[in-house]
Amino acid sequence: MAEIDRCLIANRRQGRPHVVIVGAGFGGLSAARALAAAPADVTVIDQHNYHLFQPMLYQVATAGLSPPEIAMPIRSILAGQRNARVILGKVSGIDKPNRVVELDQGDKLGYDTLIVATGARHSYFGNDKWERVAPGLKNIEDAIDIRGRILLAFERAETTADATERQSLLTFVIVGGGPTGVELAGSIAELARKALADDFRHIDPSSARVVLVEAGPRVLAAFPKDLSERARLALAKLGVEVKFGRVTECNRDGVLIGDASISARTIIWAAGVAASAAAKWLGAENDRLGRVKVGADLALPDNPEIFVVGDTTLVLDEDGKAIPGVALAAKQQGKYVAAVISDRLAGRPTCGGFRYRRRGSLATIGRKCAVADFGFVRLSGSLAWFLWGAVHIFFLIGFRNRMAVLLDWLWAYITFKRGVRLIFKRAALSHEGDA
Amino acid sequence: MAEIDRCLIANRRQGRPHVVIVGAGFGGLSAARALAAAPADVTVIDQHNYHLFQPMLYQVATAGLSPPEIAMPIRSILAGQRNARVILGKVSGIDKPNRVVELDQGDKLGYDTLIVATGARHSYFGNDKWERVAPGLKNIEDAIDIRGRILLAFERAETTADATERQSLLTFVIVGGGPTGVELAGSIAELARKALADDFRHIDPSSARVVLVEAGPRVLAAFPKDLSERARLALAKLGVEVKFGRVTECNRDGVLIGDASISARTIIWAAGVAASAAAKWLGAENDRLGRVKVGADLALPDNPEIFVVGDTTLVLDEDGKAIPGVALAAKQQGKYVAAVISDRLAGRPTCGGFRYRRRGSLATIGRKCAVADFGFVRLSGSLAWFLWGAVHIFFLIGFRNRMAVLLDWLWAYITFKRGVRLIFKRAALSHEGDA
Repeated sequence: MAEIDRCLIANRRQGRPHVVIVGAGFGGLSAARALAAAPADVTVIDQHNYHLFQPMLYQVATAGLSPPEIAMPIRSILAGQRNARVILGKVSGIDKPNRVVELDQGDKLGYDTLIVATGARHSYFGNDKWERVAPGLKNIEDAIDIRGRILLAFERAETTADATERQSLLTFVIVGGGPTGVELAGSIAELARKALADDFRHIDPSSARVVLVEAGPRVLAAFPKDLSERARLALAKLGVEVKFGRVTECNRDGVLIGDASISARTIIWAAGVAASAAAKWLGAENDRLGRVKVGADLALPDNPEIFVVGDTTLVLDEDGKAIPGVALAAKQQGKYVAAVISDRLAGRPTCGGFRYRRRGSLATIGRKCAVADFGFVRLSGSLAWFLWGAVHIFFLIGFRNRMAVLLDWLWAYITFKRGVRLIFKRAALSHEGDA
Repeated sequence: MAEIDRCLIANRRQGRPHVVIVGAGFGGLSAARALAAAPADVTVIDQHNYHLFQPMLYQVATAGLSPPEIAMPIRSILAGQRNARVILGKVSGIDKPNRVVELDQGDKLGYDTLIVATGARHSYFGNDKWERVAPGLKNIEDAIDIRGRILLAFERAETTADATERQSLLTFVIVGGGPTGVELAGSIAELARKALADDFRHIDPSSARVVLVEAGPRVLAAFPKDLSERARLALAKLGVEVKFGRVTECNRDGVLIGDASISARTIIWAAGVAASAAAKWLGAENDRLGRVKVGADLALPDNPEIFVVGDTTLVLDEDGKAIPGVALAAKQQGKYVAAVISDRLAGRPTCGGFRYRRRGSLATIGRKCAVADFGFVRLSGSLAWFLWGAVHIFFLIGFRNRMAVLLDWLWAYITFKRGVRLIFKRAALSHEGDA
């Protein structure tokens, strides 16, 4: 990496400061783009070479969409922005006193300003050993793994002679009744009842049992109560059993909810979210979910040159409630931080603290079925679903992706089929491949 | 698998014979479909859950297409054929005396008639250790692996400070000047010169060196000499160096061609092809490539109930030349075998030996550039390319795939971009991850 730094040093001689952005999710990328006109060099580091449109990741996990439809090379997105460059690499730490980002394999990268936008992972609340049997859904590898598990469960059910085992293979438990859990449960139910209906000879895929487990008193807790109830009813109509209770054990035989056990070969974790390791790198104050506490300008109180945005950060709105970990919030924060940096570079006073502008919440349950909350108006059913589709396709980066997704949806809508039902080599059920 | 056999036994009581087809490539699948009206139960076994349109696999390896565009679940293809069922499983052997197919994990499946259509793998002519540094291209995992290697080489070149290392990272060697090698070389050259051109800041992707190595005297040896020459000129125009000579060593530093060494981090093997392990399972006579020798009816001389089709078999045409290992030949053989089986079941005399009906050969080199040989007429350039595209899209199974591929091509054609430039977790250059 010596060469890169040489190039940066040359720039610095011309007085160009260096903004390093760690993470090319919604927050990092919107910051990078908003810095296009700033008199600075911008470096975006990500451990993947693509930006992921995470809100539709569950569709990859359930064979509705294919990865390139919701992922785009970061290089392509920033190809036209001449002050930006992209590095594929994994950050291992941050040396605050020397203003250096440390990468795996010993590479180092100096910064004048740092934006940390490393997102979140799922959390098992201290039961990390559950991850192996109950994978979560955060990136494309997760989605391909989960897709493989679901499809393989049907394959194994088709050939097993053991009725108990067959029932267990045809039971799918999703832990967590937030938007991701609801979307996954609805989508798996539709996959089993519609797309796979004619494909097997010895089992009836539509007899599959899909169970959604929520620890709190209702699904979609972030939505108003009446929409939660409508979502629950819509799930029931799709044949999803919603169970309320805390999961106390996950293993290869199934889950325990309190004292009740459900025998299931496929468990998907959509319950807890924890911020990335950024708080640890920064030695920064954080809450129990690992979210970094920042000032009104989204910078660290003692390090005004370090900003933290998106799911990695804890920001409170006017009512003292934490801003939700959604794409829109991350994007707004990225843009805001870019504006603060531009102001500083121009010697202008900063433009006030960050304020989250809510646009409404949307969650989809299944075909022609979603809920939407815009504060002043609440929708559910097919209108909300079409709205959900339009909003999500609109925000997908790149014309090509929009067209391909539209085509896949149209196709799935007309035929009830899912085209992406591929099992790749490494897919295995959690009880397979063990000694 | 006891249950399945119970079900078969029930069928047999009704006098329905059981045809087992191993492999759902072009040969196996066309046999299965042609048996739709036969008074028999058909079981298709494959180790993957999808049928692969192999002729376009190189486009997945070079980020032009995404896997679901050229792969389709076998279950979907056969969903409507009520006498057919599909088993996802890996065959480990065949017990000829007892007429049983042995699967991994001890499952067994009885047959009355067996069709072996297990295809071919690449062969390293005894240098199997080369596989690790010079992977071949036979299935989707190979393609995703190769795609990751190519893209990662550019990423590493972007950040390395070592000029020699950078040159080596930007050198791509393809071994083998048959259709796959030519297609790969042309496609990588286009990727580097067009799709990636604007994406990097420290390297110029268009300076990448693409070398195609052919052991014989010309590329596309199966085509007439003048078309080989036109292909070579077209490759040169795309900036592909064609070298003639035998590769004597492949390692993580590059290749040796005779005494000349080429330093390259990415090597792709498109040279040798060997039949699958079927000859070993069957204890059958085979040639040095492992292709099973069969009678004029494509059955084993001593076992008329066992047929072998596609790349696994050695069939000679009227001139005594081996029929090429292409999709069309496999399809014709699959259909022919299904007709023989149907005749036997109906008590009709068989309809004569198999005869391969040539339709012509096509190979593509790059954008608007291909060669076509129909015997009576030879084409090259853009007309051949459009023909190639039309033929291949037409034969892609499933309307959805055709539409998606068409869209991707149109997009790539208009913009020179490639949308599928995703590096997944396991991708690594051959020199990485070593102790």
